[in-house]
Formats: sequence, structure tokens, C-alpha cells
Amino acid sequence: MVLVRTRNPLNVGAAARAMSNFGFLKLRVVEPFDVAFREARSAVGAPELLANAEEFGSVAEAVADCSMVVGTTAVGSRVLAHPLKRLERGGSEIRSHLGSGSVALLFGSEKRGLSNDDLSHCHWLLRIPTREEHISMNLGQAVAVCLYELIRSSELPVSSGELVAPANSGELGRLTQVLFEALSVSGYVKAGSEEITLEKARRLVRRMSLNAEDAETWTGMLGKMKAGNRQ
Amino acid sequence: MVLVRTRNPLNVGAAARAMSNFGFLKLRVVEPFDVAFREARSAVGAPELLANAEEFGSVAEAVADCSMVVGTTAVGSRVLAHPLKRLERGGSEIRSHLGSGSVALLFGSEKRGLSNDDLSHCHWLLRIPTREEHISMNLGQAVAVCLYELIRSSELPVSSGELVAPANSGELGRLTQVLFEALSVSGYVKAGSEEITLEKARRLVRRMSLNAEDAETWTGMLGKMKAGNRQ
Repeated sequence: MVLVRTRNPLNVGAAARAMSNFGFLKLRVVEPFDVAFREARSAVGAPELLANAEEFGSVAEAVADCSMVVGTTAVGSRVLAHPLKRLERGGSEIRSHLGSGSVALLFGSEKRGLSNDDLSHCHWLLRIPTREEHISMNLGQAVAVCLYELIRSSELPVSSGELVAPANSGELGRLTQVLFEALSVSGYVKAGSEEITLEKARRLVRRMSLNAEDAETWTGMLGKMKAGNRQ
Repeated sequence: MVLVRTRNPLNVGAAARAMSNFGFLKLRVVEPFDVAFREARSAVGAPELLANAEEFGSVAEAVADCSMVVGTTAVGSRVLAHPLKRLERGGSEIRSHLGSGSVALLFGSEKRGLSNDDLSHCHWLLRIPTREEHISMNLGQAVAVCLYELIRSSELPVSSGELVAPANSGELGRLTQVLFEALSVSGYVKAGSEEITLEKARRLVRRMSLNAEDAETWTGMLGKMKAGNRQ
């Protein structure tokens, strides 16, 4: 589980407690609000996993070794460029993926949730089915509900039968980079729109559900096209 | 929902928030710790249902008009004289009962849970499937998880992200063709291996599980790279 820019120590503590309750023991934090994180860590009865939490400077680094990255969202007015799945369905996809690879589940800050840049690292988004009139949940409660869904009727992880490992975020990052470069040299990227095109490419690549081999193939193909255009 | 002798105003507030999130708007409190209850009620952003909460002097009065009374428990050492059901199963019994009668779901105090006397008013008990090593949940989180189970897979409109149609074979065929052409002009395809590369590209594209929009984006990008290489 990855907490991104969480501000309130009580929420960090509550998230960690729910993780311990449901047996998810690996916590990563991205740019934690320092005071909050230290307070939560030193709180009486803080679960052990909080002391072992790993800190990262960016979402990209925090999810680099994960082959499925899922963002949580309350879906406000923001336009979403990602597939959005209800927890019941998304949860079962996460469960089956856990059979063959590792999954990062991202929660954003209390005020703003995940930024568009954070979201661009996600393969898809997860929504807890709250009612229209009051969609926004407390962070600790949202974490508890998501993790409960994952261990719910804890059947053993379904073995996918897929022998090739899904591509991890590091591999998808390299693919995104070479795609962007190939687009640049081909003249596809208009001046001034570099950043938005890179973000678009990142999302596009995340939606492809590539395995590691296919990611490598694409990286090789696009590298060749890029080189061809450079000559 | 019935909160029995809750002491912490933050927990009362969190329970109320989860109720509002999941659409359970009737809260009853039994012997609330006065200060806590008043604080929770007057907190900024307290859901309306908290202002409308009914107060009772005993569990018996609070559940008098309910035809199913369910206690929640973390099951410590206490000997239980009641059937104990895991949330997944108990939740579906509650759901079906709600079709014909009203249900009271009881949560006890943070320290001691429900007393034996409280439990004696219950038809059966509900247990959230936490792990052995850490069974006791935070009250607000336990409420959120139970209520989520009750509304789980209730029919709600399909989210917008799921409405994008998957790419059809024609679209995938055009994408495959332009990918092959871009590879050809870039020098990726070795002489004599055209057929096998085209087949490989076709399979690769089929494994991407693209939607119609993304297929079009890829076709445009690859077309541009191809054109760039031709110049």
C-alpha cells in the first residue's frame, strides 16, 4: 500500500491499523508530511508495519517494482483518462493479479486525493461505491474498506495460468520514454505540448496491460523507429 | 445502527460519516458518553444524521422496534452463547432481512465492546474476518467495513470509464497494418521475415486489450513515425 502526501497522523495510524488487521504488512509512503509521519510512527500501539514503512520521493520510485498500479479516487469533477472500476470488481482483479505479480494500491492526500501526475502512473482506478450525496470517505475508513474487499471470502489467490510475468512499472517507464522520444523525432509532438504528450503516453502505456516480454518487444520496436527517424 | 456507550467523539463522527457515505441514515445511541456525543454532534462537517440521532437509556429500548438484532464482536476470550457469523455471510442475511423487516446493528464501546447483557438482546453476532494476530479494529473503520458489505454489489450505474467500447477487429487490423509498415520503413523487419513479423505484430496488438479510442491514438502515432522515416 502506498500513501501519497498524507497529512494527518491519525489517518496514517488508522491506515496502518487496518493494514495490520487484514494482514497487509508492506507500507510505502511518498513525500509524507514529516511531522505527521513521525507522530504516527511514535504513537502508542502503532503497528509494527509503520516502523518498517519505506519512504520515497516520488510515486514513480514507489511503484517501480509493481506490475499493477491502482489509484483510488472519489471521482469529483475531474475528467478521468483511466478505466474506473468499482471496488467489488476491481478487488477481484487485484486478487487474481496477486497470484502472479505485485500490486501497488495508491491513496492520495486527505484534501486533494491523487494528482493527475500521480494518476498517470496507474493502470486503472478504483472507486468505493459510496452514495452520490456523500462520496468522499475518511482516509482510514477508505483503506479499511478496500483491504477488507481484498481478503473478503479469502479464497486462495487464483492462479492465472499466465506464465509470463506482467510488466512492472520500471519496464513500462522505459517503454513510455522511448515512445515519447520516437514521437518527438517523428514530429508528432507539437512545440509546447511536450509535457502533456508525455503524460498522455504514460497513461496510454498503462492501459495496455502488457506482459514483460511484450513490453520489451514494444520498447525494441519503438527504439528502432526512433533511430530510423534520426538518420 | 446502534452505538452503545461510545466514548471517543472522533469515533462517533467517523461512524456517522461512514453511515452517510453508504446511505444508512438512522443512528441510535445508547448511554452515550455525554461530552463525546455533544462534541461529535457539533463538529464541523458532521453529517446531518448525527443531529437526528436518537438517544436511548438501554439496548432493550433502542432495539425494541427491530426484528433482527445483530451484535458486532472481535471475539476475545469471552464465551459466546450466540451463533457467530463472518461478515460475508452475515451481511447477506442482513440484506435479505431488510426486505421484510428492520435490522439493528450494534457496536460496543472502544475499550470493552458489547457487554454480555448487550449481547443477550442479539439474535446472532457478526465478526469481521481480521487476522488472528490483530483482531481488534478501530470503531470507525469497523463500521465502514460492515456497512460496505451491506451495500456491496448493489446495482449502481456503470461508471463512465467502463463505457468506452473495446476496439473491434477492423480497428485492430488497421493498427496492425500501420505498425508493420512503420517497422518496415525503420529497418526493423529483416528481409525474408516479413510474414512472421506481421503475424507477430498481429498477436502483439491483440494482447493489448485496447479500447477504440486508444487504438485510434496508436494508429495515429505509428502513422506519424512511419511518415517521418519515409522522408
